[in-house]
Amino acid sequence: MHILIVGAAGMVGRKLTDRLLRDKTLGQQAITALTLADVVAPVPPGGEADGPAITTVTVDLSEPGAAARLLAPRPDVVFHLAAIVSGEAEADFDKGYRINLDGTRSLFDAIRHEAARQPYRPRVVFTSSIAVFGAPFAEKIGDTFLSAPLTSYGTQKAIGELLLNDYSRRGIFDGIGIRLPTICVRPGLPNKAASGFFSGILREPLSGQPAVLPVSPDVRHWFASPRAAVGFLLRAATLDTARLGDRRNLTLPGLSATVEEQIEALRRAAGDRAVALIRHEPDPTIARIVAGWARDFDAERAQTLGFTAETSMDEIIQAHIEDELGGRIGL
Amino acid sequence: MHILIVGAAGMVGRKLTDRLLRDKTLGQQAITALTLADVVAPVPPGGEADGPAITTVTVDLSEPGAAARLLAPRPDVVFHLAAIVSGEAEADFDKGYRINLDGTRSLFDAIRHEAARQPYRPRVVFTSSIAVFGAPFAEKIGDTFLSAPLTSYGTQKAIGELLLNDYSRRGIFDGIGIRLPTICVRPGLPNKAASGFFSGILREPLSGQPAVLPVSPDVRHWFASPRAAVGFLLRAATLDTARLGDRRNLTLPGLSATVEEQIEALRRAAGDRAVALIRHEPDPTIARIVAGWARDFDAERAQTLGFTAETSMDEIIQAHIEDELGGRIGL
Repeated sequence: MHILIVGAAGMVGRKLTDRLLRDKTLGQQAITALTLADVVAPVPPGGEADGPAITTVTVDLSEPGAAARLLAPRPDVVFHLAAIVSGEAEADFDKGYRINLDGTRSLFDAIRHEAARQPYRPRVVFTSSIAVFGAPFAEKIGDTFLSAPLTSYGTQKAIGELLLNDYSRRGIFDGIGIRLPTICVRPGLPNKAASGFFSGILREPLSGQPAVLPVSPDVRHWFASPRAAVGFLLRAATLDTARLGDRRNLTLPGLSATVEEQIEALRRAAGDRAVALIRHEPDPTIARIVAGWARDFDAERAQTLGFTAETSMDEIIQAHIEDELGGRIGL
Repeated sequence: MHILIVGAAGMVGRKLTDRLLRDKTLGQQAITALTLADVVAPVPPGGEADGPAITTVTVDLSEPGAAARLLAPRPDVVFHLAAIVSGEAEADFDKGYRINLDGTRSLFDAIRHEAARQPYRPRVVFTSSIAVFGAPFAEKIGDTFLSAPLTSYGTQKAIGELLLNDYSRRGIFDGIGIRLPTICVRPGLPNKAASGFFSGILREPLSGQPAVLPVSPDVRHWFASPRAAVGFLLRAATLDTARLGDRRNLTLPGLSATVEEQIEALRRAAGDRAVALIRHEPDPTIARIVAGWARDFDAERAQTLGFTAETSMDEIIQAHIEDELGGRIGL
């Protein structure tokens, strides 16, 4: 089995790569080849002698011919994780539409053209986002709620979902779109994303560093760990898509929690000293952005289809301590 | 005021043109220029000496530079009615996406580029369709129900809606997308659209011609007259879009009626002789297609915003008799 990861250099892409190399199989099939593609050069992971053949490709999907070259080896499974993030897609109209819309469409069309040459119907797993939803919404968003995004990023993801559904309906490929919750605890350095603090207020104190909380502790949001995200991708790559019917885009399960619940879970994991490292510095701009975000979902379809996420903030923190801190709190 | 109609040669485009030339104004402003554009040459209507300057343009929006040339005169209102219809978009993948998606995006981007040269923010009225919805759905579809189209045409319209919303949110233009009900009674010759019979079973008998009914009389669907459609377009062109908030796409009001209710209204309008001209010839293919279509909507937002449609099939038939048959039933 040949697996292609587009967007392999990103955080989720790297974690997925590591997991596939560890598992050596996907859905009981041996992984023989792994192609890691991204607009920045993916770092080739340390392969093992008996592991899959690893190829890294630096590619901009929106460039003519790029997607066709990437698809020519006819991978069996394509993970399409590549995207310009929300803030950048909002700041740079052309770049957002070029990468997130044209890039996605190029990839899908490359499969279509490859299939026209010779029968070919890969599984395509597309990571969408809860940014396809925009306020006003009910406290809990169900599986039949409209996509009315409030950002260009959300718009581009919603369009990707529609294309994926239509191409799948027409039999061009076997697609599934998954709306990831906000990933928490996101490893690495603090970033400037408006959602960054949801991870920062846990990640920094767990490493003995100070963190800033820019919103009220009663803000509620929708979370899953990086470990759960990788689990979602594997589930999406292997489930029987006949069960999706004509609706191939899913809101995934997650944990709805308030910032206060995050802080109390941090206290249980690392004590008052960790909590004391959080400084509350209200930022009206971030508060306003966050107010437009979804707080809770009823992800019934995805749950029925076997997607699982953490059910407590304690589990989410524990996953971070195990996967990123070698099991030890750095406090 | 300069008005551009893209898709002016179609049925709705021609009726809109006639109405604008008759009214000579739009929202209290005098119409000074009218540009009629379509991929087939629009027939120039008979202008009057004191009427607006009329220009006809034959144009394929998906061709490089075409949209820019069309927008260069900076029309104040753009009606974008152009589309490859459902059956053709399903049969010809490339043509459907080229005209319905790329053409729409070219038009929207031409406005963006024109606005970048010099401030410009026209009203854009985009005709979408109830084809953005796909089964399964509740008996009545509300304003927050998801777009999950079951055709490429519906997919392309749903993408057009998302683009219109994002471009409007960013202030590029002042857009509004309106999901037209199935137009009934559609004037002209019978066509091969799966929905054609909804008009045919009224139009043909009212002119003394036989008609075929391919589905069960208990089939329910969603209708508005061509006259109501023109009313929708004028309302969309003139309403205060601040009232739309961040959701600029609307399901319009219509009449939910069964085929049996259509037939009984025909009987009231034209008697048993007219009804006797309908021959019931079940067609399983058409029945299956129609089973996937929406039957009823709760178009609350659009009603609040002043959009109005017929409330009985009698009114719909009367509009046809007045507007197409010179007030006389040809039986």
